[in-house]
Amino acid sequence: MTKMTRRRMLTAAAGGVAAGTIAAPALAQSMPRVKWRLASSFLRTLDVHYGAAEALARYVAEATDNRFEIQTFPAEQIAPMRMVLDAVQNGTVECGQSPVNFYRAKDPALAFAAGVPFGLNTRMHYAWWHFGGGAEIVNGALAKLNAFALPMGNSGTQMGGFFRRELVTMDDLKGLKFRLAGFGADVLARHGVLPQLIPTAEVYSSLASGKVDGTEFVGPYDDEKLGFHKIAKYYYYPGWWEGGVMYHLMVNLDHWNRLPKSYQAILKDAGEASNSWMLGRYDALNAPALRRLVADGAVPKAFPRPMMEAFYRTAHDIYRETAAKSPSFKQALDSYMGFRDEQLPWWQISELSYNEFLVHMRTQR
Amino acid sequence: MTKMTRRRMLTAAAGGVAAGTIAAPALAQSMPRVKWRLASSFLRTLDVHYGAAEALARYVAEATDNRFEIQTFPAEQIAPMRMVLDAVQNGTVECGQSPVNFYRAKDPALAFAAGVPFGLNTRMHYAWWHFGGGAEIVNGALAKLNAFALPMGNSGTQMGGFFRRELVTMDDLKGLKFRLAGFGADVLARHGVLPQLIPTAEVYSSLASGKVDGTEFVGPYDDEKLGFHKIAKYYYYPGWWEGGVMYHLMVNLDHWNRLPKSYQAILKDAGEASNSWMLGRYDALNAPALRRLVADGAVPKAFPRPMMEAFYRTAHDIYRETAAKSPSFKQALDSYMGFRDEQLPWWQISELSYNEFLVHMRTQR
Repeated sequence: MTKMTRRRMLTAAAGGVAAGTIAAPALAQSMPRVKWRLASSFLRTLDVHYGAAEALARYVAEATDNRFEIQTFPAEQIAPMRMVLDAVQNGTVECGQSPVNFYRAKDPALAFAAGVPFGLNTRMHYAWWHFGGGAEIVNGALAKLNAFALPMGNSGTQMGGFFRRELVTMDDLKGLKFRLAGFGADVLARHGVLPQLIPTAEVYSSLASGKVDGTEFVGPYDDEKLGFHKIAKYYYYPGWWEGGVMYHLMVNLDHWNRLPKSYQAILKDAGEASNSWMLGRYDALNAPALRRLVADGAVPKAFPRPMMEAFYRTAHDIYRETAAKSPSFKQALDSYMGFRDEQLPWWQISELSYNEFLVHMRTQR
Repeated sequence: MTKMTRRRMLTAAAGGVAAGTIAAPALAQSMPRVKWRLASSFLRTLDVHYGAAEALARYVAEATDNRFEIQTFPAEQIAPMRMVLDAVQNGTVECGQSPVNFYRAKDPALAFAAGVPFGLNTRMHYAWWHFGGGAEIVNGALAKLNAFALPMGNSGTQMGGFFRRELVTMDDLKGLKFRLAGFGADVLARHGVLPQLIPTAEVYSSLASGKVDGTEFVGPYDDEKLGFHKIAKYYYYPGWWEGGVMYHLMVNLDHWNRLPKSYQAILKDAGEASNSWMLGRYDALNAPALRRLVADGAVPKAFPRPMMEAFYRTAHDIYRETAAKSPSFKQALDSYMGFRDEQLPWWQISELSYNEFLVHMRTQR
């Protein structure tokens, strides 16, 4: 510590004590005690998803000497999994954690908050959110719903899930009962799949009892814990309907506006930190889990290329049809897909070429 | 806002004012006025690199109502580009921004703080830092140097740089004067290249005057501003010596230990936020810059595969030789490369397969 800095710090500390009666109102105003409740769309068993909410709450508490406390609640304790935004809107809770596309029925533009099939990968999505107009589009739609969202996590590219039988031709999709929701389910339905909407807690039993022929879930770390591969060994990739899922902290707009500016800043930074925490933790956990899954009999398989191409075309058909009906969706789609198409040539020669070479050399050192 | 919460917040605010004389000492202690200086290894012209330092300072100021101020200084104003850690160690400044591999002469393990040729990509590096032992290794080495580091930025995969002539066979490397430093330069030197260590400010003039035959720099956004492509049009990729460069805030350990816990937390979260800010900003800026560069005559070229393989083998030779001489390097190498090799099979089927498909379909929608 330089002498000057030490003197500066000592002076500041002494001044704070001496001038206590004067400084106190300003400080109390800037650091009030605030207690919030956070309702999550995730169960505690999805410990990295829910863990991002716990991490965010911890970061906020640490940054404020526990003056700003956020108590987290797993799905169903306060609000059902797909009604967290409702609880935020009506003030039942001050904030909540969800993939915001759960609420696309409220505004079609919200589909793009978390990502859509064949959409932006994790890094592109982040860049779109902060530098490509994403935040403005999604928060523009949310403002009409009395909410405000900030990023607080990403899963990275997920897996395509477990299937009992191999997928070889398009005919193999006909009549297949597969657990999936959202646009991905709409795409599969057009190719004869019967998508099943099954709550997280019932996925394993549905697969075990034969109620479904296959299921998507998350990625190796979460999938291994549930043991899907023991029933349906073909483990398909990539999860083209979740190429990078951004999760948000949704905040009731009145509560957001009432926060001191410093608490708004702390909450944003905590969201950024938990955003990276979640992705890093999944990256660290998924790789060894995949190794163990394969050792235990799971058989990784790529979706056949012609099948992927058909899904891709169908997804874009659906986007065009939806855009024709909804100006809000169209505006978001153009921004989001425009960003993707601008990104890809750069991505191809930088990250993709570097990663492809590392994979190529893996066994040659 | 629920009634209960409003009451809670009002009570807290009122209590703060009424109990001011009691609460003030505690608050003054937890939120002292602190003024730090940050010396950067980057010039202001590298506005995304230096901008990450400015972003970090802004986040810290916003989170503390300007009570914790960090004044940033570009390279050379307080410390030379490659002596920022020295300035941090001896307390000339409280903190600094560098790629920490600049200081590998102080401890060979520091080479891995920012990344090494054919090393971890951006996301893997982040996961290694927080969940794979990276922070412990690097901060273990830095503690002996009276410093502590936290992540505050990443450039993503950089470009391989501009060359006047095409690189076809290994013979084309012989006698080539190319601007590059670090392990990448060591690798090229073994293949006959004459690496040139040239300060950022002199790179363009060196290329224009023919003092060098080619130069690496950063990526499209920074490269375009300098106009290298007008002199040397072949734009090689990927920048295998910088597959993902993590930059750190290095803090003098005494100053770090003296910070209130809440300020330590705020500084870490601000680092996480600027880490993502820098990467997102580069992603958003590099893609359109590449498009403009190509329109303006730059010719993107992949390093020939046999050349890449030769570089890869040489890099690993150098790592093995260095490890045989330095236990500190060996410990870091084993952790870092072990993490890479565990990550790659997962990366291959998730992110890589998804991104490769998007690139494949780019023109087919």
